[in-house]
Amino acid sequence: MTNSTTKPRARDLGIPLQGKTGKYNALTDIDGVTVGHETIILGEGQLELGNGPIRTGVTAILPRADQNDPVFAAWSCLNGNGEITGTTWVDESGFLSGPIMITSTHSVGVVHNAVIEWSQRSHRLNSVGNPWSLPVVAETYDGFLNDINGFHVGKEHVFKALKNASTGTVKEGNVGGGTGMICHKFKGGIGTSSRIVRLEDSDYTVAALVQANYGLREQLTISGVPVGMEITDLMPIENNPIIQCDEQGSIIVVIATDAPLLPHQLRRLAKRAPLGIAKVGGVGGNGSGDIFVSFSVANPHAMSDSEVRAVRMLPNELMTGLFQATIQAVEESILNALIAAKTMRGINGNTVYAIPHERLRKVLRNYNRLAN
Amino acid sequence: MTNSTTKPRARDLGIPLQGKTGKYNALTDIDGVTVGHETIILGEGQLELGNGPIRTGVTAILPRADQNDPVFAAWSCLNGNGEITGTTWVDESGFLSGPIMITSTHSVGVVHNAVIEWSQRSHRLNSVGNPWSLPVVAETYDGFLNDINGFHVGKEHVFKALKNASTGTVKEGNVGGGTGMICHKFKGGIGTSSRIVRLEDSDYTVAALVQANYGLREQLTISGVPVGMEITDLMPIENNPIIQCDEQGSIIVVIATDAPLLPHQLRRLAKRAPLGIAKVGGVGGNGSGDIFVSFSVANPHAMSDSEVRAVRMLPNELMTGLFQATIQAVEESILNALIAAKTMRGINGNTVYAIPHERLRKVLRNYNRLAN
Amino acid sequence: MTNSTTKPRARDLGIPLQGKTGKYNALTDIDGVTVGHETIILGEGQLELGNGPIRTGVTAILPRADQNDPVFAAWSCLNGNGEITGTTWVDESGFLSGPIMITSTHSVGVVHNAVIEWSQRSHRLNSVGNPWSLPVVAETYDGFLNDINGFHVGKEHVFKALKNASTGTVKEGNVGGGTGMICHKFKGGIGTSSRIVRLEDSDYTVAALVQANYGLREQLTISGVPVGMEITDLMPIENNPIIQCDEQGSIIVVIATDAPLLPHQLRRLAKRAPLGIAKVGGVGGNGSGDIFVSFSVANPHAMSDSEVRAVRMLPNELMTGLFQATIQAVEESILNALIAAKTMRGINGNTVYAIPHERLRKVLRNYNRLAN
Amino acid sequence: MTNSTTKPRARDLGIPLQGKTGKYNALTDIDGVTVGHETIILGEGQLELGNGPIRTGVTAILPRADQNDPVFAAWSCLNGNGEITGTTWVDESGFLSGPIMITSTHSVGVVHNAVIEWSQRSHRLNSVGNPWSLPVVAETYDGFLNDINGFHVGKEHVFKALKNASTGTVKEGNVGGGTGMICHKFKGGIGTSSRIVRLEDSDYTVAALVQANYGLREQLTISGVPVGMEITDLMPIENNPIIQCDEQGSIIVVIATDAPLLPHQLRRLAKRAPLGIAKVGGVGGNGSGDIFVSFSVANPHAMSDSEVRAVRMLPNELMTGLFQATIQAVEESILNALIAAKTMRGINGNTVYAIPHERLRKVLRNYNRLAN
Repeated sequence: MTNSTTKPRARDLGIPLQGKTGKYNALTDIDGVTVGHETIILGEGQLELGNGPIRTGVTAILPRADQNDPVFAAWSCLNGNGEITGTTWVDESGFLSGPIMITSTHSVGVVHNAVIEWSQRSHRLNSVGNPWSLPVVAETYDGFLNDINGFHVGKEHVFKALKNASTGTVKEGNVGGGTGMICHKFKGGIGTSSRIVRLEDSDYTVAALVQANYGLREQLTISGVPVGMEITDLMPIENNPIIQCDEQGSIIVVIATDAPLLPHQLRRLAKRAPLGIAKVGGVGGNGSGDIFVSFSVANPHAMSDSEVRAVRMLPNELMTGLFQATIQAVEESILNALIAAKTMRGINGNTVYAIPHERLRKVLRNYNRLAN
Repeated sequence: MTNSTTKPRARDLGIPLQGKTGKYNALTDIDGVTVGHETIILGEGQLELGNGPIRTGVTAILPRADQNDPVFAAWSCLNGNGEITGTTWVDESGFLSGPIMITSTHSVGVVHNAVIEWSQRSHRLNSVGNPWSLPVVAETYDGFLNDINGFHVGKEHVFKALKNASTGTVKEGNVGGGTGMICHKFKGGIGTSSRIVRLEDSDYTVAALVQANYGLREQLTISGVPVGMEITDLMPIENNPIIQCDEQGSIIVVIATDAPLLPHQLRRLAKRAPLGIAKVGGVGGNGSGDIFVSFSVANPHAMSDSEVRAVRMLPNELMTGLFQATIQAVEESILNALIAAKTMRGINGNTVYAIPHERLRKVLRNYNRLAN
Repeated sequence: MTNSTTKPRARDLGIPLQGKTGKYNALTDIDGVTVGHETIILGEGQLELGNGPIRTGVTAILPRADQNDPVFAAWSCLNGNGEITGTTWVDESGFLSGPIMITSTHSVGVVHNAVIEWSQRSHRLNSVGNPWSLPVVAETYDGFLNDINGFHVGKEHVFKALKNASTGTVKEGNVGGGTGMICHKFKGGIGTSSRIVRLEDSDYTVAALVQANYGLREQLTISGVPVGMEITDLMPIENNPIIQCDEQGSIIVVIATDAPLLPHQLRRLAKRAPLGIAKVGGVGGNGSGDIFVSFSVANPHAMSDSEVRAVRMLPNELMTGLFQATIQAVEESILNALIAAKTMRGINGNTVYAIPHERLRKVLRNYNRLAN
Repeated sequence: MTNSTTKPRARDLGIPLQGKTGKYNALTDIDGVTVGHETIILGEGQLELGNGPIRTGVTAILPRADQNDPVFAAWSCLNGNGEITGTTWVDESGFLSGPIMITSTHSVGVVHNAVIEWSQRSHRLNSVGNPWSLPVVAETYDGFLNDINGFHVGKEHVFKALKNASTGTVKEGNVGGGTGMICHKFKGGIGTSSRIVRLEDSDYTVAALVQANYGLREQLTISGVPVGMEITDLMPIENNPIIQCDEQGSIIVVIATDAPLLPHQLRRLAKRAPLGIAKVGGVGGNGSGDIFVSFSVANPHAMSDSEVRAVRMLPNELMTGLFQATIQAVEESILNALIAAKTMRGINGNTVYAIPHERLRKVLRNYNRLAN
């Protein structure tokens, strides 16, 4: 790697990846989308229930930044061993009315509550639609590194993540909801990527953000290269026999686009997430909560209480390019999470290693797949 | 009944029904929708496989008459012991590209084939979308009265039903696909009804057409009155012990509207059909194929190969009135099928009786529910 | 009404209802099922955010009382303007691993959290299946009577509801999660009912419990009688113009059985709930969260980490009787909620009236539908 | 390639593939499953509607050979631009009662009809379950090579495919329903593969059979190697501008296992098919009908009209191995279809080339991915 940045991403390492990315190669390449993290890392040593060590956090995605204007949305899932609240109404109405929050499995409740309180305070209740809030909160499990049953995410962390949400570069790896995550037995976490697709003289952007916490080592495949078969050491150190670091992971994928897709078309995008996961080696194991939310920032003011609205719709015939872009963006988001994450030691000294960049480059080179 | 028409409908008999109907109180109250039947009644006496007696037919519903312009559509089902082809693509694309055909269970194949041939001939293939056809063909079982395994629906009957399709009054009862049907152990078949709904200063119409072939007698409820408990005679005469006239029926419901609903909103309409069926006493028995298709004639030219289109969308907040109208139209369609159907004798002399109009009025009067 | 009990139920009032009930005519007629409520009623007068008045609570349903043995389960929904957590994994796995909680819309988060804490304490995590908990928490909106944004349900209330869970008679009306609910503009809340069905020489029980909070007055239908058209007064008193008592209700339905149904068969039961709701006049309005969970207590120890298990399956051919029973039990549960609920005054003096029992009997009598 | 067989399969060519295969590396490795093809190849030259040239056929899969004993089954789909009949009842009942047929898009109707006639003749109607038949017929489009609108599949071909069904080796490539298919712009068709999975001391087999007719060239990926980027010539010769050989393909996948899975678990298998397709480069394009059926031959006699049955269920906790096996078997099935298919010239001289075996080996070698 000739690049001297302190935080290389997948492409910087020479992993060959297809497609044209947006400016930040991130979810924030979608106009208006903001992302914020709140990361909680505290303590070392033996697990004491309620006292840590703490390796957790929460990530907030606001489809239209501070505007209270619902977006068309949909969701899908590969393996449903996970939670995402609020999807029943997304599915029924075709709209997503608030932020998407991603956190630790046992923090769903507090984040749910905090989002309602935030909605009240920011006067989002009653303005359009209902006087109640059905927050969208997703999770993956961080109990291998974090005192998960200590419930360390508080509502103040949720408010901070929401406040932190901004456009531009998105932090990846051990941040926000992704803080304590594990991916193919390397350190995982948050990753993001985007693609620009030209359809009939117009450019559209599709982007993904993942909280990656799934996968066995031997499954790990990078640009077709069986990396997990080649780097078999650096496996997690488990000092706690009760919570095994088995195939119990999950992956949350958020897909955003500026293409004018209707809700049933957005469901089609969400259904492509598993194809991106498959390219990295995921199978949607039984213990996995592989859940995908998609939304479009096109069609502002589509929601109304009383007026028929004109909305724009991309022809189905043009969607194949978006499908391809979604698959690529999901794949690259996972790789970005892996590449950005740093080695972490958590409860009981349990340790998960970062994927070693130079060794990875060497493996790719051996398979004639190193791009630069 | 003081009315002297030769073919009374449910309202003519004084059955109290809520809501304002359209001009024809029929599916054809939706602008552009045409309906055509081809009825095949031939022979008497013992069943000879392939020789009849024949009591069957086919019904064609064209969402935009002879125009080849797909409509937004969706589907749903209560109990899935039945067939409806073409729904996988309706669900995925949000569009219905051809007619909806309703026929006998074992005629699905020939109708499917014939619709493709008709699409070719009428140059509907390749014009918009795909060079192939995925016809929508639904069915209910008429083997109690009809030589169903004789495959008596031919492609010429399908072409006739399509050709017969017209606006205006829709024939009900023993016609088209409904020819050999049984409903709550009275003679069933085709029925239709419509409702006009005022939403924010605009009138919208919702209409239903059913092929009703389900239900036990004791379940039959008309405007809340337990009619099936009161009229317990006139049960079907079964001369063939092999094919029992048990709870093996089904109901196909087609719901059309001119309200500008997107595909995910049309699915919501389709999901209300069971509530209308419930009001007449249906439970969606295990042997029942209760399948519902909905479409909107709003948004002409919504399908394009290459251009972003502007389409109109009714706010979700206004949909409750359409739900209520759908439930009412489905309920009244079933009643219209029952009231219009005539006593029929079929294979082996098997006989299914028409519901007796005057006795029905008497029962309603006893429960203080006769409207006129 | 000749009956002198202080708390009549629907049948006591002479409402004609079909089918044979179980001993308690309640969800607890299913062997092993326990139900517990915690009701929070405090304060009078003007709403002060965070200070009440409080009219809320939480209800706990434990499928196998204190045993940690998951049950086969499924879910369905009519209109999804509501929340129920945990269903993604129920759908995927076919199992329900913990209690079903029902509460107020804005208390979902705290109940979710509290159930995880309770699962830890009661050593339910890690025993079978996963080291994490995906609680099932459903809600309906009580903000017309309750200081809903004050978040008055605490984890101690959740623990109490779980501890209160018992077999035998189930309290109905203004209790538990149903405390602040409104149904067809009369006071609603919790109701329950059961049916015994004889199938091939064996008796099975199907039971329902509802938290009823939906419906307009004019829709209210009781045993086919248009009661809502006859009793048009006693409408809610609204002293707060911001939170309107419009069609913004919901209904949660829990269906339990001892029939040995597999998960895909339990989904079929859940899909019959709307037919019961339709009989009382519900339409699944746009603002409604109509969500249905079903489970079977047959097949204990069906979940295993490692062993193939023999499980019993009822033939599909016998399920029609269970469908009918489900519809009847749901209908009667709603009526029991209405009959049991007492007039309640809440925030800002907002008042919702109980349905008047004697006037209801009179209306039924006028339609020749009074049973006793 | 040192191997001298006349028909190499993917593994023979040295494509590195993971997992242990069954005896035939085919769907027929599942005990009792038989597969039969009927291939129709006739004529050369210009297309004359109804006169050919003909390049089509039909494939029959019988889950339990000649036994009329339904199997547990499920289905799923990635992109639904295709037809598969009979799935509504598979989904509802959890059972597949007859054969699975795969054919050309415009032959669905005749195959549907013929299966009903075959069911009658073979006395499968009325024996268990219903007196009607809801055949499962799937399709992909062969109109680039075949006179598809000539309807050349007749019922006699269907009867032959059913009669041809046998255990043992399965013919691949240009056979049966796969005769005229195209895959990643090389000649496609039928392919099959199997995996043996050891779970808690027992061996289970999972197998797939595909009719592969999808994909662009540049997407083609074989064992991670970007083959479609390397072999860019040998593109289809198009002499007919009306029917373009664009991304209009589809893939039907049949997944069978002897693991004792319940219907909801079989749905989980079916949902893994897209991950196998993704590994070869498929994206589920808008024109694609990617439809997946899964069944288990375990639990004979699970269907009954009247008796509670004991059925065996594999724990969810053991399913991850089956997911992995499914993905691998689907991937290898597609590769086997590509490797087995021969260059074909069809209507108007349109020509689709076979993938060149030695060049493929060379590409794999360049990427250090040749296994032998």
